[in-house]
Amino acid sequence: MAKNEDFVKDIANIDEDFAQWYTDIVKKADLADYADTKGLVAIKPYGFAIWENIKNYADKLFKETGIQNVYFPLLIPESLLQKEKDHVEGFAPEVAFVTEAGGEKLDEKLCIRPTSETVFSTLYAKWLKSWRDLPMEYNQWCSVLRWEKETRPFLRSREFLWQEGHTIHETEEEAKARTLKMLEIYADIVENMLAIPVLKGRKTEKEKFAGAEETYTIETLTRDGRALQSGTSHYFGQNFTKPFEVKFQNREGKEEYAYQTSWGISTRLVGALIMAHGDERGLKLPPKVAPIQIRIIPIAQHKEGVLEKVKELKERLQKEFRVEIDAREQVTPGYKFNDCELKGIPVRIEMGPRDIENNQCIIVRRDTLEKITVKLDELEEKLKDIMEDIQKNMYNICKKRMEEKTSIARTLEEFEEKINTNQGYIKAMWCGSAKCEDKIKERTGAHSRCIPEKSEEISDVCVCCGKKAKEMVYWGRQY
Amino acid sequence: MAKNEDFVKDIANIDEDFAQWYTDIVKKADLADYADTKGLVAIKPYGFAIWENIKNYADKLFKETGIQNVYFPLLIPESLLQKEKDHVEGFAPEVAFVTEAGGEKLDEKLCIRPTSETVFSTLYAKWLKSWRDLPMEYNQWCSVLRWEKETRPFLRSREFLWQEGHTIHETEEEAKARTLKMLEIYADIVENMLAIPVLKGRKTEKEKFAGAEETYTIETLTRDGRALQSGTSHYFGQNFTKPFEVKFQNREGKEEYAYQTSWGISTRLVGALIMAHGDERGLKLPPKVAPIQIRIIPIAQHKEGVLEKVKELKERLQKEFRVEIDAREQVTPGYKFNDCELKGIPVRIEMGPRDIENNQCIIVRRDTLEKITVKLDELEEKLKDIMEDIQKNMYNICKKRMEEKTSIARTLEEFEEKINTNQGYIKAMWCGSAKCEDKIKERTGAHSRCIPEKSEEISDVCVCCGKKAKEMVYWGRQY
Repeated sequence: MAKNEDFVKDIANIDEDFAQWYTDIVKKADLADYADTKGLVAIKPYGFAIWENIKNYADKLFKETGIQNVYFPLLIPESLLQKEKDHVEGFAPEVAFVTEAGGEKLDEKLCIRPTSETVFSTLYAKWLKSWRDLPMEYNQWCSVLRWEKETRPFLRSREFLWQEGHTIHETEEEAKARTLKMLEIYADIVENMLAIPVLKGRKTEKEKFAGAEETYTIETLTRDGRALQSGTSHYFGQNFTKPFEVKFQNREGKEEYAYQTSWGISTRLVGALIMAHGDERGLKLPPKVAPIQIRIIPIAQHKEGVLEKVKELKERLQKEFRVEIDAREQVTPGYKFNDCELKGIPVRIEMGPRDIENNQCIIVRRDTLEKITVKLDELEEKLKDIMEDIQKNMYNICKKRMEEKTSIARTLEEFEEKINTNQGYIKAMWCGSAKCEDKIKERTGAHSRCIPEKSEEISDVCVCCGKKAKEMVYWGRQY
Repeated sequence: MAKNEDFVKDIANIDEDFAQWYTDIVKKADLADYADTKGLVAIKPYGFAIWENIKNYADKLFKETGIQNVYFPLLIPESLLQKEKDHVEGFAPEVAFVTEAGGEKLDEKLCIRPTSETVFSTLYAKWLKSWRDLPMEYNQWCSVLRWEKETRPFLRSREFLWQEGHTIHETEEEAKARTLKMLEIYADIVENMLAIPVLKGRKTEKEKFAGAEETYTIETLTRDGRALQSGTSHYFGQNFTKPFEVKFQNREGKEEYAYQTSWGISTRLVGALIMAHGDERGLKLPPKVAPIQIRIIPIAQHKEGVLEKVKELKERLQKEFRVEIDAREQVTPGYKFNDCELKGIPVRIEMGPRDIENNQCIIVRRDTLEKITVKLDELEEKLKDIMEDIQKNMYNICKKRMEEKTSIARTLEEFEEKINTNQGYIKAMWCGSAKCEDKIKERTGAHSRCIPEKSEEISDVCVCCGKKAKEMVYWGRQY
């Protein structure tokens, strides 16, 4: 029989080598595996089920605000990509090109979409006639390719799954409202479903999306105190609608260019989940996103009546929970407990002959490892409370970590010292120049994360150059 | 104001030029549009919503039988594609290749998946160890590329959306059972949801999938009597598992190659829907798959209370139906009626001041154009009956057409004459040789569609060569 220790021996120590621990968990918890094409990963059923849960939750929220789904082409003629100057500069180095197809060399190279602003803009230009057609608010769930040099499953992969929403509007105000609305929805998804608190704000000029007027972001924090950009929403103004001629007859009968947004979240959120909640035992999933919320493990399953009773219990619970049984014969219950913890299943239920006799079972919480004996009559009610409590508790743990790992710096020396000792976010004043941003990055390894809506007055001079400060910025090292 | 005639004037006559009618409907009913890359289409919200409904229905059925979703890479190294001889011969001519990425020329060309047998086989080989790991039954919803010479939206597009399921099994029997199970599920989807009767059966050697032992198909019939292959399920035996070394330790402790299947349905089903049900007024959607089941059109909407009442009605009905209001001011009710018919919405409700006074509304069925006055108290109940009746009626119309357009032929002359006059399916005996299949195709334009499970004894000689017949085959011209 497989032994308990089999689990731990191949997983790096989380506090000593977090990056390796992450890769180990991705493989050992059956989330994803490397494929034959370098830098591309295969998302396995367990990992994909997490993404499906996120997707279904998000899709519902989008649709409630009027977003409609579409599917637009994977391939973009090179000439289209080049129409918006900043955009092509931002993406060209990472693009993959199709040059042969159907046995022939193509006249024009086709790029595999790294993002689809150019495709949506071209089609919107074709369809848009009058202000009455506005807004057009379309979204697609698809994969995109960005030929990154260094990759890491879920966090930075050459191909990844995401949704990209692209909207056009009659007015600047309306487009800006949609940009911010999506930021709120993203924060809702990450905080309420994934149980990870977010930092919300605007990106600096340097960090914003190629071609955008403004980029808004939600940032999450990993266990080891690094920042992860976890969702972005962009306001484009007329940056794309002008070169792509996305224009309409306005209410005054005059021709006008539409105002545009785009926004996206990706399978990177699965990485954020692993890095925010995982511990030395493996993955830890909040109940709302967990593909399996409860796994029932029979004790002494060879004894008469145990498996029958356990199946009965599953039938009962699956009306309200995502539940499965681990009835494998070739491994011990101890092995099954570890497997359950490794996969981050929020609750396991143990049930053996004595429990059956006493009309009870044992609930073990993944977050606290607390064992609770529960009478079967009260089980559903108890489980509902426990699930809610796990969800809340996991959020609070991350919230506390975020607070503890947020420091204030008034000088560059203080900045450096705090980020070296405490990691996490540094709150510091900034003059607004890219030069200072570069210098801070060079010296501390920290990028600007975002400018929050509500600034704090930490001091009135820039943490870097000492000149008059423009605003407060959150800084942090990133994955 | 836009006039009623605007609708009809740009749509080809369905009985004179069905192919052009089809393309017109795709565009006019807002299902899809051509994109800037030749042969690729953009699926618009209304067309995509149809696919989403099919997808959700199918995905549920798959999962109920134990299928799990995954996402595997878009790009396949050329060397992988070449591992199975028949497979590469079948697909190589249609493949698109990525040769440059990230600013560099690639060492090995990467093909964009035309289908993923090779990818799944490679990964299964990596993961499979023991008979205890079997079956592995994974599916992915994704897009694939096949560089076809001639394209038509939904029916044959260079990029299309589909699901591809790939399973491996311990025994031949189990794999064959999965192959047939999927055929049943596909028939369920098309008959029960899309209201189109199918012909089920096995493909001939010549028509089967590249690399398969057996290919099973569901075939639908278009209004103009052509056959459409609408879903296929393949049994591979060990054709892929041997070259890809997908092997396991069997119950006797010996090494054995797994038995494999794959199966798929695609956005072609949207084309099948249009071609099976459409009429001179436009699209006609069965209620189960219709994105909008009811559209409410206010009459004299400027009069006090009308819009309020109509909104109230929508609130009420949306608890049970997918419903929307057409309250546009710039077009007449007549225009709206036509638009509603063009889009194939199963039921429209008209409601004006007099209806409100009489506590009633008028229901108009898209399938029969019947007008029914209904008291508001009985509305939901009545609508449920009507929806069921429309679904059934639409199925029956196609069923009757299929029966009328199925002929028997005992000689090649008879074959030719019947397919020229009646189109549709020809039932004829066949000797089993590809030579006769080629000859029949050359002479009549008909391909073999399938060999049904239950053969009929039409005669004992081949319709083509007159030699001893092996089995009965359905033949037909195709899109």
